[in-house]
Parts: sequence; C-alpha cells; structure tokens
Amino acid sequence: MKIGVFDSGFGGLTVLRALLPLLPQAEFLYLGDTARLPYGSKSRATIVRYALSSTRFLLEQGADFLVIACNTASALALKEIKESTTVPVLGVIETGANEARSQSKTRDILVIGTDATISSHAYAAACRERGLRALEKACPLLVPLVEEGWVDHPVTAEVVRIYLTELLQQAQESDLDPDTLVLGCTHYPLLRPMIEAALSPAIRVIDSAQATASQAAEQIAGHRARGGSAGSQSCSCRFFATDSVAKFRNLGTRFLGSPIHQVELVDLGG
Amino acid sequence: MKIGVFDSGFGGLTVLRALLPLLPQAEFLYLGDTARLPYGSKSRATIVRYALSSTRFLLEQGADFLVIACNTASALALKEIKESTTVPVLGVIETGANEARSQSKTRDILVIGTDATISSHAYAAACRERGLRALEKACPLLVPLVEEGWVDHPVTAEVVRIYLTELLQQAQESDLDPDTLVLGCTHYPLLRPMIEAALSPAIRVIDSAQATASQAAEQIAGHRARGGSAGSQSCSCRFFATDSVAKFRNLGTRFLGSPIHQVELVDLGG
Repeated sequence: MKIGVFDSGFGGLTVLRALLPLLPQAEFLYLGDTARLPYGSKSRATIVRYALSSTRFLLEQGADFLVIACNTASALALKEIKESTTVPVLGVIETGANEARSQSKTRDILVIGTDATISSHAYAAACRERGLRALEKACPLLVPLVEEGWVDHPVTAEVVRIYLTELLQQAQESDLDPDTLVLGCTHYPLLRPMIEAALSPAIRVIDSAQATASQAAEQIAGHRARGGSAGSQSCSCRFFATDSVAKFRNLGTRFLGSPIHQVELVDLGG
Repeated sequence: MKIGVFDSGFGGLTVLRALLPLLPQAEFLYLGDTARLPYGSKSRATIVRYALSSTRFLLEQGADFLVIACNTASALALKEIKESTTVPVLGVIETGANEARSQSKTRDILVIGTDATISSHAYAAACRERGLRALEKACPLLVPLVEEGWVDHPVTAEVVRIYLTELLQQAQESDLDPDTLVLGCTHYPLLRPMIEAALSPAIRVIDSAQATASQAAEQIAGHRARGGSAGSQSCSCRFFATDSVAKFRNLGTRFLGSPIHQVELVDLGG
C-alpha cells in the first residue's frame, strides 16, 4: 500500500507523524509544495490548480490512497481532486468534522484556520451536514509564528489569546454554547498547549491531524479487507518538495518530530 | 516611457507610491506575482525562475525601464534579470545601499529584511562595495503582521522591539557603531513609526522604497536626456496580479495609499 500525503508545506507532516504508528506496514510518499506555499492566502482557482498538479505527481509515483493533509486544499479543492482519480481520497476537513460530531455534546463547534480555509466556510458546511453549528475564525498570524519557531513565546501566547477572545465573544453574541474547538490547520498542533491555556477547560481541542490519521488508518484497513494490496514491506517514507530540500529537512524535522534525512526536489512548473 | 514595476506582491506599491509624484508624465505597469508570493521564504533557484517569468511579462507589455521593487528578487535574481534584457533595470538593494552611503557618518549600517534577502547577504555585499560595514537581521514576522493590518498593534510593537533589541545587541558585540538602519523590505515602511520608536534617535531610518523612487526618477531623466522617448501622455498605471484581483485591490490600496480600481489577472503558469 502506497499512501500519498500531500500538503502545501510542512504542516502535513503532523498528519504523517500521527499515521506512522497506525500503519507500520505502509509505504508513504509525502509531497510538500513548498515552492508555492502558503496556499492559505491564495484564491480558489489558484489553490485548485496547485493541488491538482501536486496530487497528480503523487499518483504518478504510485500512490493508491491519498491523504490531503492540507486544510486549505481540502477546503477548496477536495471535489476536484476526487474527480481527478479513482483512488480513495481523504481530506482533513471531513475527518475534523467527524471527530467534532463524535466529541461534542452541545453540538456547537469553534474552528480556527487560515484565511482561505475559513473564507471557504468548508468546516461550517461539513459541520452543518453532521448536525453541528460551527463558528469559524481566521488566525493568519499563527502559521508564521510557528514557522519562526516561537511555539513557546509570550508574543505567540498573546496572539492566541487575542484571536480566541474575539472568537469566544462572537460565540456569546451568536448565542452559541461551544464545547469543542477544531484546529483547522496542521500547523496548530504545535501551539496546542497555548490554545488550551487560553480556553476554559470545558472546551475540548480536536487536532484534525490526529483525527485524519485515525480515520485514514480505519479506511485503509477496510480497503485491505476488501481485497486491496496487503503491503509486505515495513514502513518507509519518501519525501518530495518543490523548493529547497535543505529547508524542508530542517523545518520538517520539527513538524515530524523525528529526523528527515533525504528529500527529493520536484519541479511541478510555475 | 513605460516603467515596469515588479514585486512578488503588494509591498512594491510603496515604491510605485513614491514614484508617481516624481514622474508625473510616465506610464506605469505594476505586476504583483501574488499567486507565488511570498518569495522571502523560498530558495534562490525558485526566486530566479519566478522573477524572470514576471519581468518577461512586463517586457512583453512594453516596459522600457524595469524597477525591481522586491527586495528578495533584487537580492537573488537581479543579475539574471539584467542579463535577460537590454532595458535599464534598477533594484532596491543597490538604491538602499547608495542612500546608506550618502547618509551614514559612522559607515556602520543595520539592515532588516525577509529570510531570503538576509540569507543572500546582498545588502552586506552592496554596502561593502561602498565602503560600509553592514549587520543584517531577518525579521520574518513583520510581513504577516503588516498583512494582518496590525500596523498600530501592541503585538507588532513588541515583535519590532524584540527583533531590534537583538540586532542592536549583536551590533554592540561586533563593535559596530551604527547610525543608519535600512528597511530592506517594502512592507516595512508601514511600520516606520514603530521602528523609529524602538531605536535611539541617533539612528536614522532609510526607506529603500523612497530611495529607489528617487534614483529611478534620476536615471529616467538621464535616459530621456540621452534620447529616450519623451512620454507625452499624463501619468497612468495598469495593475496586474497572478492571484485574486479582488484581494489585490483591497490590500493594494493600503500600500499604495490611494484606491486601485482595476486589476488584470495574469497566468504565468505554475
């Protein structure tokens, strides 16, 4: 089984990190479209174009299951990616919303993410389909703060506090009673302690990376049971990036939580 | 005279803003390569490729003078851009360094910019050629803070203070006596009051956007005197972007300081 994991950059490595222990027999292909990141501030048309060329590359490399580990691409291009292939495709939005449905008692959900993810209202739509109400907020400074390495920095704590205070105030004004907050961006798990510290303990934090990994592992187990390839070799990963492989190794190691030794450079044009 | 002004995004509009009153007769073409921004975090090879396709577009539109209003592209791709055309090309690094030379008494200069600009050491090299010593520092959070609109926000003031305190401490440890700080990124003029507040009044701030506009206007005047086209029509601007034109209009207006009504979408591939 070759599992293609795609993200615009490094954040999707938090999904891969959660997948590795769940699927120890699988072969993983990870593509970070780092030459064209971030997707989060771009338009739908551009994001669809980038996501399609990136997933096409993973399919050409033999992926027979695709995990779209990028919230922005899942929000804006999942339909187009699914239409472009016959292999199963799993996006982080649907898995985050599934997890929220199984965790929330009040059925009121908060979601934080990038500009593009939030503007798409993909989480709100996915929540609505599952009988949940969602209030969404874009937090565009959190990705640069994580990439600066300020994950324990008081400035980051203050930015988190500002964003979440605004969000909780909006929830109150909208007569919502949220008990669940979805981290709708794969960079945010690195800020989870700060985010939890800024919330009342009554609000549970859902990491969409973790939720995606669990649901991907379940689907892949089902896929195999229905006659998919069994996968005989032990777990392996190949890493591809469209920009500097040195930077991918350095920054990627922080997200994956273990060293990345080799990264292959890919030219997707543009 | 058609003056092509190129930036990866919106920041170069601060250069255009400074150029407009200096060249009231000129026709301007501004290209923001917004689908592929930011350049600041990308590798040299990628930046060269993006800068060449962007400047080729401006030349095809008839530009007979190019202003590279992007510090990252000026730092990493100016040689390649100059080699690709016969029209005069002016980059913001050389103009910033020229201005520093004419302003500094101590000959010790501080420079702040994006990761890619600073890693290239292009400012240090340009300063050295002019008999100046430069100490450079990457400030990767300042662009996202400006783009979030937090130009008057206490968090931004704190981030500026942290970066500049580190820089001044390094200067002291290196036995430098700086009297000049170059804003080596076209987003930073929007933070100028905060940056000046975090420095001793003995340190003068140089805005490379303003310096570039003055030097471009001088060169263009010389170019005309040597027989260049005189330019009979009054000042006009055409705006091109590779991503969302709506976002360009909205965010661009903040940088230009006056409304942008029409933006044309360009596909440079990728």
